[in-house]
Amino acid sequence: MSDVAAAEPLGILRVATPRAWAEYAAREWRLLLVDHANCEKKAASTALAFMFAYPEDRALCMTLARLAREELRHYEQVQKLMTRLDVPLQRMGPGRYAGALRARLATGEPARKRDLLLAGALIEARSCERFEALALLLPGPVAAFYAGLAESERRHAGLYLELARTDLTGDSDAAAFAHRLAELAAVEAQLILSPDPQFRFHSGVPLAMQAV
Amino acid sequence: MSDVAAAEPLGILRVATPRAWAEYAAREWRLLLVDHANCEKKAASTALAFMFAYPEDRALCMTLARLAREELRHYEQVQKLMTRLDVPLQRMGPGRYAGALRARLATGEPARKRDLLLAGALIEARSCERFEALALLLPGPVAAFYAGLAESERRHAGLYLELARTDLTGDSDAAAFAHRLAELAAVEAQLILSPDPQFRFHSGVPLAMQAV
Repeated sequence: MSDVAAAEPLGILRVATPRAWAEYAAREWRLLLVDHANCEKKAASTALAFMFAYPEDRALCMTLARLAREELRHYEQVQKLMTRLDVPLQRMGPGRYAGALRARLATGEPARKRDLLLAGALIEARSCERFEALALLLPGPVAAFYAGLAESERRHAGLYLELARTDLTGDSDAAAFAHRLAELAAVEAQLILSPDPQFRFHSGVPLAMQAV
Repeated sequence: MSDVAAAEPLGILRVATPRAWAEYAAREWRLLLVDHANCEKKAASTALAFMFAYPEDRALCMTLARLAREELRHYEQVQKLMTRLDVPLQRMGPGRYAGALRARLATGEPARKRDLLLAGALIEARSCERFEALALLLPGPVAAFYAGLAESERRHAGLYLELARTDLTGDSDAAAFAHRLAELAAVEAQLILSPDPQFRFHSGVPLAMQAV
């Protein structure tokens, strides 16, 4: 990991959110909130999945239990905002983003644990970057809420990166780690820059007006 | 649901924890703590599973998001206590209890949702009852911790019962509900009273000294 990434977790992202996505999201902010609530729920579920997969790693379990609690609180906050702004509930299936990233992760240990943590860092960093990109474009109450969330997601990205670096020993390990992070960041960037038929919090460049 | 159960969720349990289990648990309190941490994690996971299964039910989702946060905090508290008391981490597979109860639940909706909520109420009520049964038998720090947890679990049992009763309309509905609760409580009682080769937080009467 570069020093830049250590100081600022957003440094791990290769590309900025395309303007076309941000403008679409600003227009479809009600749909965005629905998918955002789903994302917070999934983020809590991902943290819990780590706790089931690596119960012997107490430090990791404690960090991710707290992180899961924070994601759940965000979920509750999004739901309250939706109620306040009269945003109707609707089912939205998952987009391609997390699944496509996950499909590229190593399947054998210890590489899988490192990859899962790096994917967690990338997703949290992207969330932070999008909250910041949206803060200026959204209606007042949503903008203020998102500015606050951006800070949490930045911290979460840092936590995942720190956990991923825990077991590194020596220079060759660090080099392999940086190489792997760059590989996964490239996959992530491709998902953000390529046309995407579905609109979601983590989707690519909007293809059409068809949002659901 | 009887008025007794409304006033005191523990009223839904058919039998008290056998003395043999409590004595075994007091002797094997280190193992108990390991499985207890797993139970808190699973309780959070169960609450989250409801949120994924019934996203349109906002009241249920909000209640269970908060409940999941509380279970995660308990998980963190058990882990801290284990560290303080020098209890080693070890992998323990799940016991028969939750799986056997779950196997008896309806598979089609809306009966499944009701059954899942009733199973949640029974498990939380049993947890409360066991924390109370253990509070007098365990070493000081664990006893004090368990006395506090008993109150949370009692409240959780009440919340699950309340959610299960949300959609009831009319007397015949209420009668069918009471009948179903009695059926599942009988299954639960059988799991508590019958010999069990494994020792767990929710296991039956200990068969042997073989604990793991």
